[in-house]
Amino acid sequence: MSARQHLQSKNDFLMKGGILTQPTLAYETWGQLNTQRDNCILLFTGLSPSAHAASSPMDPSAGWWEDMIGDNKPIDTHRYFVVCINSLGSCFGSTGPASENPITGALYRLDFPVLRVEDIANSALVVLDHLNIETVNTVVGASMGGMTALSFALMHPQRCRRLLSISSGSRSQPYAIALRSLQREIIRSDPLWQQGHYAPDQHGPVDGMRLARKLGMISYRSAEEWQGRFGRERSSDSPDTDNLFGINFEVESYLQNHAERFVGAFDANCYLYLSRAMDLFDAADHGGSLAASFAHLSLESALVVGVKSDTLFPLQQQEELAAAMQPFVADTRMCALDSIQGHDSFLVDMDRFRPTVADFF
Amino acid sequence: MSARQHLQSKNDFLMKGGILTQPTLAYETWGQLNTQRDNCILLFTGLSPSAHAASSPMDPSAGWWEDMIGDNKPIDTHRYFVVCINSLGSCFGSTGPASENPITGALYRLDFPVLRVEDIANSALVVLDHLNIETVNTVVGASMGGMTALSFALMHPQRCRRLLSISSGSRSQPYAIALRSLQREIIRSDPLWQQGHYAPDQHGPVDGMRLARKLGMISYRSAEEWQGRFGRERSSDSPDTDNLFGINFEVESYLQNHAERFVGAFDANCYLYLSRAMDLFDAADHGGSLAASFAHLSLESALVVGVKSDTLFPLQQQEELAAAMQPFVADTRMCALDSIQGHDSFLVDMDRFRPTVADFF
Repeated sequence: MSARQHLQSKNDFLMKGGILTQPTLAYETWGQLNTQRDNCILLFTGLSPSAHAASSPMDPSAGWWEDMIGDNKPIDTHRYFVVCINSLGSCFGSTGPASENPITGALYRLDFPVLRVEDIANSALVVLDHLNIETVNTVVGASMGGMTALSFALMHPQRCRRLLSISSGSRSQPYAIALRSLQREIIRSDPLWQQGHYAPDQHGPVDGMRLARKLGMISYRSAEEWQGRFGRERSSDSPDTDNLFGINFEVESYLQNHAERFVGAFDANCYLYLSRAMDLFDAADHGGSLAASFAHLSLESALVVGVKSDTLFPLQQQEELAAAMQPFVADTRMCALDSIQGHDSFLVDMDRFRPTVADFF
Repeated sequence: MSARQHLQSKNDFLMKGGILTQPTLAYETWGQLNTQRDNCILLFTGLSPSAHAASSPMDPSAGWWEDMIGDNKPIDTHRYFVVCINSLGSCFGSTGPASENPITGALYRLDFPVLRVEDIANSALVVLDHLNIETVNTVVGASMGGMTALSFALMHPQRCRRLLSISSGSRSQPYAIALRSLQREIIRSDPLWQQGHYAPDQHGPVDGMRLARKLGMISYRSAEEWQGRFGRERSSDSPDTDNLFGINFEVESYLQNHAERFVGAFDANCYLYLSRAMDLFDAADHGGSLAASFAHLSLESALVVGVKSDTLFPLQQQEELAAAMQPFVADTRMCALDSIQGHDSFLVDMDRFRPTVADFF
């Protein structure tokens, strides 16, 4: 039994680039909302996860942040009511390019309006209003989720008291834009993409998605981690060593296995939209400059966490974010972790991330 | 008029993975060989350049290391006789997968034996023997060329006195293997690759090559450089801002322009072979360990140069190389440069590289 809730909005939803007719938002919750209705933690996800951040009695399968959310865990569900929303534009229950347009009865595909991080943030209000939550205790996000959380705090300063931003930033830098732009071009170059018109019951551009995911993995981890983990170990999958085109090294097996799990699980058009949304995000758009934008903030405290080995959202971005926030949020803290797993550290280096998050809560 | 010399070997050439019938080697020279025949600098190239490292009276077009080689330049052609060889397996005059197999009359394509860096190093002997040069003053290379130079020094210790290795290493690390493996898979995924059987007068997998080159550019430069150079500047090529699939940011234009210049100029099969040769290189293969291999060296001096922002051949690899060489080459020096242009710095940050190379010569 899935713990996923599906909320269909009774209203149309205004995106920056267009209007969605009564979109659906999928979300999961953990813990209990208190009588003051002020103990909500609102969690936004990175590009690819669903709303299933942690297991629950209704869905005991492990979530993507299983170690972080639960009874007596860093985000303690004895104290907090946690809400995680599947991003608008994604494909795990919320309306996105893979959903049916109720007006036409056809899938949106590329007719879906250009997606912005701000649209994802705004869509959370539909869920919060439904749950009758005026103000959340803390808005939390890592990677794209951090951009969404920041965006939420900028646009709805009265609806959140605290911010936790992890391995994210106030804007996309050109190196990350280049990587994502190339991932998208790889997907679109797969003839099976068919300008977005692959059959809905098939997987579409599987080669393109596999290659894009491998590039993702390369950008999410670090050279140092892989040197220690794989070195020059040869793959046990490949009897034919030194072959030109087969899998020869263990690191090639690892990428192949990870990519195969992703392909088929994520819709290609949704991926294209969410990826571009990250490129387009710039917190300075909310005021003309970062300072002018951050003057809108009304936070009691903020914690910005970054990782030294992250090449996709380098530590300087976290430092820039914290420094820009400091004049407007007196209790802004910055935490630089020594994890070697790069951008993905928040998903895997739980020994460093658990105490950091627990401290904040 | 091209300055390129084409030397066809009178003998068959033994590769690690097979035999080539009387291969051709293309090379260029600058300066004069002295009467003692001991002033030769042997230069190996990275994966993609031709032998045209610098202009000459016969070919005044600028070479890929124009600022480094010439009269009164760091590699001073008043003093030295410089020889640069187009790598075996490449497509700029030397025999490779795009060449005709003289036995069959057909192009080698994927029948070309698996290429190793050692084969490229050994092929230089054909040229040196032809030029009647017993011992070179210095063997020089950057990136793949550094691996080739090291390989030459390991296999032919009596034929070189000094080594200059730039932004290279004693073996490929898994992060670099992953990047190159993905580049190759992207090329092979292009339907126009046709298992290597694209028409010789056509460009073959142009989409795959363009995408692979973009990934190359991303791995050759650095996030810091692009942040300073491009920031979030929008492309002037694109009137349609915020479009999903077009070029939107200046960094995307830059990659597109660079990639377009590469596509059509480099043969896809040659690229696949040379790329895999880098993965397979491990100097430890020459003795069972780096120390046992380096015990073969008979160098008077060595300089290992690396760049702090290089993510493809990180500085630790240069440090590892210098440290492993030190016990066997007393005059081993290590130089770490502050260039921000990543792996490509040796091609562009001439203000730092010129004096470093000049000092060594």
